[in-house]
Amino acid sequence: MRMVDIIHKKRNGSELTKEEIYFFIDGYTKGDIPDYQASALMMAICFQGMVPRETALLTKAMVDSGETIDLSRIKGHKVDKHSTGGVGDKVTFIVGPLVASAGVPVAKMSGRGLGHTGGTIDKLESIEGFNIELTKEQFIDNVNKYKLSVAGQTGNLAPADKKLYALRDVTATVESIPLIAGSIMSKKLASGADSIVLDVKTGSGAFMKTLEDSESLAKEMVAIGNRLGKKTIAIISDMNQPLGFEVGNANEIKEAAAILQGAKIHDLRTLSLEIAAHMTVLAGAFSDYKKAYETLEQNLENGKAFESFRQFVIAQGGNIEVIDDVDKLPQAAYHIDVKAEMDGYVSEIDAESIGAAAMYLGAGRATKEDHINHAVGITLNKKIGDQVKKGDVLVTLHAARENSENSIQKVKEAYHFSRNQVKQPVLIHKVIKD
Amino acid sequence: MRMVDIIHKKRNGSELTKEEIYFFIDGYTKGDIPDYQASALMMAICFQGMVPRETALLTKAMVDSGETIDLSRIKGHKVDKHSTGGVGDKVTFIVGPLVASAGVPVAKMSGRGLGHTGGTIDKLESIEGFNIELTKEQFIDNVNKYKLSVAGQTGNLAPADKKLYALRDVTATVESIPLIAGSIMSKKLASGADSIVLDVKTGSGAFMKTLEDSESLAKEMVAIGNRLGKKTIAIISDMNQPLGFEVGNANEIKEAAAILQGAKIHDLRTLSLEIAAHMTVLAGAFSDYKKAYETLEQNLENGKAFESFRQFVIAQGGNIEVIDDVDKLPQAAYHIDVKAEMDGYVSEIDAESIGAAAMYLGAGRATKEDHINHAVGITLNKKIGDQVKKGDVLVTLHAARENSENSIQKVKEAYHFSRNQVKQPVLIHKVIKD
Repeated sequence: MRMVDIIHKKRNGSELTKEEIYFFIDGYTKGDIPDYQASALMMAICFQGMVPRETALLTKAMVDSGETIDLSRIKGHKVDKHSTGGVGDKVTFIVGPLVASAGVPVAKMSGRGLGHTGGTIDKLESIEGFNIELTKEQFIDNVNKYKLSVAGQTGNLAPADKKLYALRDVTATVESIPLIAGSIMSKKLASGADSIVLDVKTGSGAFMKTLEDSESLAKEMVAIGNRLGKKTIAIISDMNQPLGFEVGNANEIKEAAAILQGAKIHDLRTLSLEIAAHMTVLAGAFSDYKKAYETLEQNLENGKAFESFRQFVIAQGGNIEVIDDVDKLPQAAYHIDVKAEMDGYVSEIDAESIGAAAMYLGAGRATKEDHINHAVGITLNKKIGDQVKKGDVLVTLHAARENSENSIQKVKEAYHFSRNQVKQPVLIHKVIKD
Repeated sequence: MRMVDIIHKKRNGSELTKEEIYFFIDGYTKGDIPDYQASALMMAICFQGMVPRETALLTKAMVDSGETIDLSRIKGHKVDKHSTGGVGDKVTFIVGPLVASAGVPVAKMSGRGLGHTGGTIDKLESIEGFNIELTKEQFIDNVNKYKLSVAGQTGNLAPADKKLYALRDVTATVESIPLIAGSIMSKKLASGADSIVLDVKTGSGAFMKTLEDSESLAKEMVAIGNRLGKKTIAIISDMNQPLGFEVGNANEIKEAAAILQGAKIHDLRTLSLEIAAHMTVLAGAFSDYKKAYETLEQNLENGKAFESFRQFVIAQGGNIEVIDDVDKLPQAAYHIDVKAEMDGYVSEIDAESIGAAAMYLGAGRATKEDHINHAVGITLNKKIGDQVKKGDVLVTLHAARENSENSIQKVKEAYHFSRNQVKQPVLIHKVIKD
């Protein structure tokens, strides 16, 4: 078998066989197949696509290229969630305790990553003493005891995907729905859960800007998961503005804690309940979605979900005082209000610009070496549909420096206004089950 | 400027600017741009194509990536020819002396290359003593004196093309008409001629199998030449069977010498006259094609063309006795007849199979290190349209070994027969002038 023939075949629009896909992934992982052949194949796939059978095989080959996490020692049906990423997305911190409160185990491995804020484990490290470096035994024991644990990702999961993604990033071959789907799913599948709920964002602040693209990606990922024997569903949720009111690290933990104590922040609460309900149904804890949703909603009200969160924090060494009194979370030195310069209704809040503003404050990493400031972030005071008068505070920046002009500028760019009333965007566009 | 953005732009179907094309070619030649980005761009071009302006710029950037040959010391309008390659194509040895016989200078630099037979200079080396390693001064002096010289290619012509072609070969990005056209033309344009006549082959034995593809390639090359200030025309000629009756190295020199002495081998003679006539018209030696053709035809009859050939051979140290008596050219030890196994009319002679048969005999090189045997080759006795009776000799192999089963097999595969009369294929399909 020769790599050039495989490239040629895909270039001409033919389906690749299992043998060809494994030949490529194995050879590329080992370094036998050079980058220049891999990038040519990636570009051919960008144009010719892959059928679901090929995408699933590619994903499986990437899973098989490295280690997989064995969660078999955890009792019960393990269910994982994944978000394609957005601004203000702290859903994991709500969904995890919610699902755990229904007795369903959540064993989450997470990375740090680059972005406008830290990743899941960075945000958790806003909590004094919180330890994400668990041994495999501690991790599994915690899940068995408390139904929830989050640990930094260890092990060499889907190395083929890591290598390919880095290559795609510099060869303009990122935007291919089968390749994006395969990349995400290879990491999820290597993480050992039995079922997966995907939160695919759509809108100006999402990787997929249009509902059509988001739906294609969601369908592709659901197909991969189901073909490879994991029950998978996808929710397509809105990212035409940041989710909730808080963006940052400590800021997001604080808002999550509020929701877990019953706060009625519409979009964040609803989306979290939706995702958690699907997760518990997939795990078999409830016979139907409506029953799941109602029970979980009660668990937000009756303190069970918050108690799950507290147990989880304590179990991983976090100082529970900063959760019981979130004012004790890291606080930024400066609070800078950005005010409206005209009357009107908020018509648009470009999430990417808000993300950039948070990044400039120091909430995220542009390179692996950057340090995250857990205390900085952004509190939105106005969201789409809100009426605003000149001089009203649009957002408050939590800043480490008095001079935060870059961030102020980005916030001003993010907000758009209309003279006429504006409807709130639809939150949940679709649920894709197969 | 970032290479990833250039790839992205082409992937999305946009035209590249001059700056972007030069950034790529310069960076790639120097090694600043890695192979994996170049191959992704090549694949994007395979799908999105390039407009004539881009193709011309790419070609010029490849010319500018290396040396160019300065032929300004040669008096008169220098005209070059190039064939896209076929089996039995010895047209250069006829056209060169023919054009020279009309007083038009032909300064040809040629390579060895891989293939079923040697390249132009390998074939010339069938002539005892023939020296292709001329200094630049000798080469130019010879052209000025005898109107014809052929030398091995020296200098680092279009290094970007060499590097890119090697990459395209292993990344399934060879078949792209703008890229093929740019590759051929970059070498031609670096070779310093004022005008170029292209012989674009079409048919089963050509790189371009269909007339449509051949015409696209021809038009693309003519457009590049004319945009870059060289008068360029292309003839689309048939390669549904080998050209003439001889395939090999000494074999082909022998057949060329016969034509130059007036032999009436239809396809080879007609195509040579056609190409030579266009070359002399481009050079301004004749006011119109018909006049040129008639004069050149006379020069085949009256000995002038042959005399030009003799002078050329003598000037480059060749033993003229082997030209005056071609039986003194290298002779193979064995002559093996392959005979018809049925009655009928020859309907098809797959040129690639005949080429493979010649290769197995030792006439060509599969790798750079292979040695060519100048004496081996194939004489066809029957061509398309000929009536054949069982037992008639189809071809005679000139072999170095008694056992040439591979070649015999290939010859048998090449010949196809029909019970009904078969017309000769059209020889010259089109002439593309702009």
